[in-house]
Amino acid sequence: MTQTKATNIVWHEGHVSRQERESLLDQRGVMVWLTGLPSSGKSTIAFTAEHLLVARGRLAYVLDGDNIRHGLNKNLGFSADDRGENIRRIGEVGKLFVDCGAVALTSFVSPYRADRDAVRDLMEDGEFLEVFVDTPVEICEQRDPKGLYAKARAGKIPSFTGISDPYESPENPELVIKTASSTPEEAANAIIDMLQKRGKISA
Amino acid sequence: MTQTKATNIVWHEGHVSRQERESLLDQRGVMVWLTGLPSSGKSTIAFTAEHLLVARGRLAYVLDGDNIRHGLNKNLGFSADDRGENIRRIGEVGKLFVDCGAVALTSFVSPYRADRDAVRDLMEDGEFLEVFVDTPVEICEQRDPKGLYAKARAGKIPSFTGISDPYESPENPELVIKTASSTPEEAANAIIDMLQKRGKISA
Repeated sequence: MTQTKATNIVWHEGHVSRQERESLLDQRGVMVWLTGLPSSGKSTIAFTAEHLLVARGRLAYVLDGDNIRHGLNKNLGFSADDRGENIRRIGEVGKLFVDCGAVALTSFVSPYRADRDAVRDLMEDGEFLEVFVDTPVEICEQRDPKGLYAKARAGKIPSFTGISDPYESPENPELVIKTASSTPEEAANAIIDMLQKRGKISA
Repeated sequence: MTQTKATNIVWHEGHVSRQERESLLDQRGVMVWLTGLPSSGKSTIAFTAEHLLVARGRLAYVLDGDNIRHGLNKNLGFSADDRGENIRRIGEVGKLFVDCGAVALTSFVSPYRADRDAVRDLMEDGEFLEVFVDTPVEICEQRDPKGLYAKARAGKIPSFTGISDPYESPENPELVIKTASSTPEEAANAIIDMLQKRGKISA
């Protein structure tokens, strides 16, 4: 069976092409970039989508604060420069996952339009799908599962997005999710529908 | 069929576990770290192994200067600090690929033992397989496909590993490849044998 698979592989100048990995995985590499206020529901949606995709036999992987801020980007703080470098590195790593053929789901506040657009510019057309998790700040603040808004209101977190630092909404996102009126499963399925309609995964 | 696959998936606290992706891919995530002098043959071996692995239906991905130095690490130079940060970032990115379930092959000179050992320490036991591409400097310099040794001898490249900067050989690598007496295919097959014997991929 290994041999049978091998006959489909063409070796271009000693490198395995992205198309060969995509053929192996039966999907196309793509970056799904979730952006929204703290506590807007990004990570819950990203992990739900990852779960549903892997259950369908698709390779999906979430990049989020847990595996990035404690690892690759642990030497970055929250200054404007460091926030920019944070997003730049996440974009570059996501690009590698896309080249590997994976559905890379990123879950970061990523408040600045210019930083997000710089990541979009790294990618080919149609490879960067921006998902705006559009939850009003009042709802985010009510939820506040980590108590961050309370700390920010108390002045204990400087430059907190939504309170003391701006959030710049996407102007032309590929998908908008209103979490006030949809469950995480519904939101994740909207992402999966988008991936199917754009030919990244089969229906 | 999607539904059938889905029944095998257990959802642990909302996160897809690494084991679920590994089950999907029918392999175990692992980092194969090639180290050796410039022009020792690392990249040729890494891309040959990637080719043979993908031909067998295994997901393998090479991290090398082309996709790292021009992207994630384009803001790093060649000072001792920057060389250390270069290897640290590559280690962290490789760790993400391992978590995703891939065979991550890294191809970098990575001359300092302490930097390589720091990457090994990031990983669980058995996840970091160090491959010493042991080519004598005289042979590397004879090959010199990019003319780098010639430039270094002419004093045009400061701190060139093997000429003006030290290369610290691995003390206990998982595999040693002598390129003077083996072809790239033989070397790649030695890596694949190692992955099979360690249970990372099936025979």
